[in-house]
Amino acid sequence: MANVLVAMGSKSDLDAVKPAVQILKTFGVDVTVKVMSAHRTPDVVRDYASGKNGDFDVFIAAAGKAAHLAGFIAAFTTRPVIGLPVKSSTMDGLDSLLSTVQMPSGVPVATVAINGGLNAGILALQMLAIGDDKLKAALKEYRAKAAQDVINSNINLSEEI
Amino acid sequence: MANVLVAMGSKSDLDAVKPAVQILKTFGVDVTVKVMSAHRTPDVVRDYASGKNGDFDVFIAAAGKAAHLAGFIAAFTTRPVIGLPVKSSTMDGLDSLLSTVQMPSGVPVATVAINGGLNAGILALQMLAIGDDKLKAALKEYRAKAAQDVINSNINLSEEI
Amino acid sequence: MANVLVAMGSKSDLDAVKPAVQILKTFGVDVTVKVMSAHRTPDVVRDYASGKNGDFDVFIAAAGKAAHLAGFIAAFTTRPVIGLPVKSSTMDGLDSLLSTVQMPSGVPVATVAINGGLNAGILALQMLAIGDDKLKAALKEYRAKAAQDVINSNINLSEEI
Amino acid sequence: MANVLVAMGSKSDLDAVKPAVQILKTFGVDVTVKVMSAHRTPDVVRDYASGKNGDFDVFIAAAGKAAHLAGFIAAFTTRPVIGLPVKSSTMDGLDSLLSTVQMPSGVPVATVAINGGLNAGILALQMLAIGDDKLKAALKEYRAKAAQDVINSNINLSEEI
Amino acid sequence: MANVLVAMGSKSDLDAVKPAVQILKTFGVDVTVKVMSAHRTPDVVRDYASGKNGDFDVFIAAAGKAAHLAGFIAAFTTRPVIGLPVKSSTMDGLDSLLSTVQMPSGVPVATVAINGGLNAGILALQMLAIGDDKLKAALKEYRAKAAQDVINSNINLSEEI
Amino acid sequence: MANVLVAMGSKSDLDAVKPAVQILKTFGVDVTVKVMSAHRTPDVVRDYASGKNGDFDVFIAAAGKAAHLAGFIAAFTTRPVIGLPVKSSTMDGLDSLLSTVQMPSGVPVATVAINGGLNAGILALQMLAIGDDKLKAALKEYRAKAAQDVINSNINLSEEI
Amino acid sequence: MANVLVAMGSKSDLDAVKPAVQILKTFGVDVTVKVMSAHRTPDVVRDYASGKNGDFDVFIAAAGKAAHLAGFIAAFTTRPVIGLPVKSSTMDGLDSLLSTVQMPSGVPVATVAINGGLNAGILALQMLAIGDDKLKAALKEYRAKAAQDVINSNINLSEEI
Amino acid sequence: MANVLVAMGSKSDLDAVKPAVQILKTFGVDVTVKVMSAHRTPDVVRDYASGKNGDFDVFIAAAGKAAHLAGFIAAFTTRPVIGLPVKSSTMDGLDSLLSTVQMPSGVPVATVAINGGLNAGILALQMLAIGDDKLKAALKEYRAKAAQDVINSNINLSEEI
Repeated sequence: MANVLVAMGSKSDLDAVKPAVQILKTFGVDVTVKVMSAHRTPDVVRDYASGKNGDFDVFIAAAGKAAHLAGFIAAFTTRPVIGLPVKSSTMDGLDSLLSTVQMPSGVPVATVAINGGLNAGILALQMLAIGDDKLKAALKEYRAKAAQDVINSNINLSEEI
Repeated sequence: MANVLVAMGSKSDLDAVKPAVQILKTFGVDVTVKVMSAHRTPDVVRDYASGKNGDFDVFIAAAGKAAHLAGFIAAFTTRPVIGLPVKSSTMDGLDSLLSTVQMPSGVPVATVAINGGLNAGILALQMLAIGDDKLKAALKEYRAKAAQDVINSNINLSEEI
Repeated sequence: MANVLVAMGSKSDLDAVKPAVQILKTFGVDVTVKVMSAHRTPDVVRDYASGKNGDFDVFIAAAGKAAHLAGFIAAFTTRPVIGLPVKSSTMDGLDSLLSTVQMPSGVPVATVAINGGLNAGILALQMLAIGDDKLKAALKEYRAKAAQDVINSNINLSEEI
Repeated sequence: MANVLVAMGSKSDLDAVKPAVQILKTFGVDVTVKVMSAHRTPDVVRDYASGKNGDFDVFIAAAGKAAHLAGFIAAFTTRPVIGLPVKSSTMDGLDSLLSTVQMPSGVPVATVAINGGLNAGILALQMLAIGDDKLKAALKEYRAKAAQDVINSNINLSEEI
Repeated sequence: MANVLVAMGSKSDLDAVKPAVQILKTFGVDVTVKVMSAHRTPDVVRDYASGKNGDFDVFIAAAGKAAHLAGFIAAFTTRPVIGLPVKSSTMDGLDSLLSTVQMPSGVPVATVAINGGLNAGILALQMLAIGDDKLKAALKEYRAKAAQDVINSNINLSEEI
Repeated sequence: MANVLVAMGSKSDLDAVKPAVQILKTFGVDVTVKVMSAHRTPDVVRDYASGKNGDFDVFIAAAGKAAHLAGFIAAFTTRPVIGLPVKSSTMDGLDSLLSTVQMPSGVPVATVAINGGLNAGILALQMLAIGDDKLKAALKEYRAKAAQDVINSNINLSEEI
Repeated sequence: MANVLVAMGSKSDLDAVKPAVQILKTFGVDVTVKVMSAHRTPDVVRDYASGKNGDFDVFIAAAGKAAHLAGFIAAFTTRPVIGLPVKSSTMDGLDSLLSTVQMPSGVPVATVAINGGLNAGILALQMLAIGDDKLKAALKEYRAKAAQDVINSNINLSEEI
Repeated sequence: MANVLVAMGSKSDLDAVKPAVQILKTFGVDVTVKVMSAHRTPDVVRDYASGKNGDFDVFIAAAGKAAHLAGFIAAFTTRPVIGLPVKSSTMDGLDSLLSTVQMPSGVPVATVAINGGLNAGILALQMLAIGDDKLKAALKEYRAKAAQDVINSNINLSEEI
């Protein structure tokens, strides 16, 4: 069964990762959620990244400021690592974004939008769906529903203007 | 067999995508490379993204400036889309990066570093390897070689200082 | 009769587009207002942009973050497209601005200020007025009134300092 | 006959405006090209903007750094003003872009990409085409040719990789 | 007697200019305060800048967003113009700062910090003091008092930590 | 006689300050030019700023990176200090600009454009002209000549397009 | 006994420096806390920096906007100077950061994160620990406790999602 | 004897670190120079940082883009870590700077200017000098020489203007 690790650098990132965790669970994916810090508990990160605490298909790593967590995990695994930059109290998320996305050649981090927790989860699902036709179909259905929500948001729109 | 579409918004992006194409080929992945523009040939993009020209497992989209190509493809598929922001003559790549990564909820683009063509390719391989143990092993080996290259770069280092 | 489509990427952009809609109505222009998402309902956007749901003289497109909506519309029409970048919760509007304005050669988007809804509407009126002397005169009068408002704001100013 | 003023803040902006002038001429539009500086020859700008030197349907204003020219023209006319931010030797075009696009409520400038001279010209044509079916058709044809160019750039592409 | 014009682009800039006005009055300088908009009342600005409404020794111009007011005044006078960039609701003041400070060769604007109203006033006083020994002495005394305030802020500091 | 100190933080800033020095000399102002570093020769800076090496009417300070020189001088004098931010090899001048302009309340620095040496000189002249009608007239004449240069740059312009 | 000066440019920086002062005291280091302004009380800064008011092993300097305080201290001492950039009301801390960190060759400032008061204190402790095995051990213990706090934050985490 | 590790993320950073190595050697400090990558050879970094390959008093870490190396080292040691951000081909050094300096509470990195190799070395010397009076004196002498160099750069200056 598909198995995703959702790591956050600090418990204060919990709100940012919740949408990722929830969408993964909704689609029936096994999720392990952990607070682990690249800088305060590097060996915990290393153990999870290198497979000592279970074999994860995809990693999601959320962190703010000098957001090294995703890159740190990517250093110890060749599985896909999704980076979720979290906006903190200064620099409006730019520091988190650049620290996450500007990885050197050879070690990518699949970066989503600042505070884009839901998209981190959906991206993980899209990766897992490559070899899973049922999940592929479920994602198509989910997208169709999102489209319908946009279309429905036009109902009574003229009255609100 | 795994099948990746590498799209670029303009032929001037060719140098940026070459490392992606080459690493994919090196690992034996079937690659289709096309110039297609979100703004000048939107229906070509739509046809490729929605599966009319073949069923791609992963998309890589390279574009500069207001880099809409990856998001445009992601709008028509639920397969993973990797965004490769290309630096153009102004704004030092920041426009391409933000246009690629800051996608709205529901439609992620897996963004790599500005001009990070090699990483776009490796990320695609990591996605394809989720269900492919042979590719998993090949990626581990590739990483080990990269590590060895770093270690070797220390040979004679002291003489150069 | 002049006919403008005001599109927004999400219903949360409604406050940003209201001033555009209101000024257009004040000047007697026919306005169609729709929520349509470049990424969630691309085919709805395509239909409106390519003229399947009526023939619009000018398009106004409001969106935030990786704001692709204006560019997406511009891809399917050669009518003037006005881009209205909307500030979202991160990056202070810079992402929306760059994603909207930095269009590639051949497909322009006429971009106004971040959250500049009123100016999007006025710009549409200025375009429509090119061949409409009555509208030209109305715009001159409107500007004269704005000038008078600035002049009047000096009344009693000295008492407030 | 349609009549466009192309103004540049300094003769050093000539390369940036040339594509605008050429595309306008190609489409048979009457173009007046002038160097005029918002800060060094403000009264010249005022005279042209307020119609003393002819009645222009659309203005295009190119300037760098604290690029006030487009806003300065817009202050004296209610005709559409297209702002073309020009990159100078510092700040990578960001100063020109923000100075051009962030106009206050009531006085819009239709801003195109940094150094986007061709798009400034095309946008002017799109505005002029609102009431001109022949020009509308010509723009459609031009776009179709641009699409074909993109499609043709794929010929022999595989040999270059 | 020394005579300073304090201009603001919109009445909403009043809070930003108040410290400038007050410090000028405290030092006995004649101050004229006016709302005048570079874009909505350009001829009012021109008249004040070119000396039609009195002969000002120094100009202070406060504006936000595409802050053209200081540059606009500088275009019509060779007296010193102090630019006061005002932070508005987007871009954190960067747009106002760049629009004010990045003036082209030949027409300087003496720019102070974003929202630095007090400093705009003090800078005007420093300019006026060049030929005024009494004002020079008053400024020295004012600085000495500011120094004393800093020194006094250490009283009881240890108890607050 | 009017007396200006032109200070630069490093001899590598010489090209940036030359236009300031030359325009001042052209207008007959006494100029002292010195390399002095806020960080390497702080006491030299302090001596010049506090009047130990002559009584300067205006200071011009050019520096790059963390450009503290203008602020450092301003700390020791209440005469006007003009800050000239110099672009260095990283950050495109933004660091120099912000370090120069964002001064705290009470101690202004009159900041000109990045690498705006000529404007630093002209601003000093404008300050000195407050009490000097002959200089006032000379500045007007200089501006008129600049205007004429702009007007003349239109000669043969049409042939170059 | 180890002796650290914690300087802040304004009393409004007190909250930013408190964590530095507290951690230093917790580790038994002698701390002197002073408000001193590079621009308003430069001679006070100079006296403290050059050793006239005691011999400090390490300096910590907190300031916002054009944050010159750390550089100013570094100009008068060769002891390590830690710069703590403080976010003020505009520019989101970027001005403070660049003004503090971009020091010229020869005079470093050891810069920590924007508003990173605790880290400024810990960095001072790390410097002091170089020749102090007891402090080295205490820092290791402190880090181990921080690691444990991260680990403990996982308790009951699953119930909060 | 004092012992410094100078680590760089890639051999391409060699030019950036050379000034650090040379100044350390000039002052008689034992320097170990190694290429080690946070992302490609994480275990090598961990071994050096945690003391397995010798006991270093201070670490200097140079890296570009998403510059994680300094933070990675800091995660495994409580010795002072100096971060040297290296400018790469995009983003003008901003990515390296933010990735290095914006460290989370508890794990500081002492960051110097972008490409500030010499300052990284001097800062290490300043740290080592805390308990070393001879090194303290040598640093004072070095600074005095730097001051003299600035003073000497004024010789013949007037002839170059």
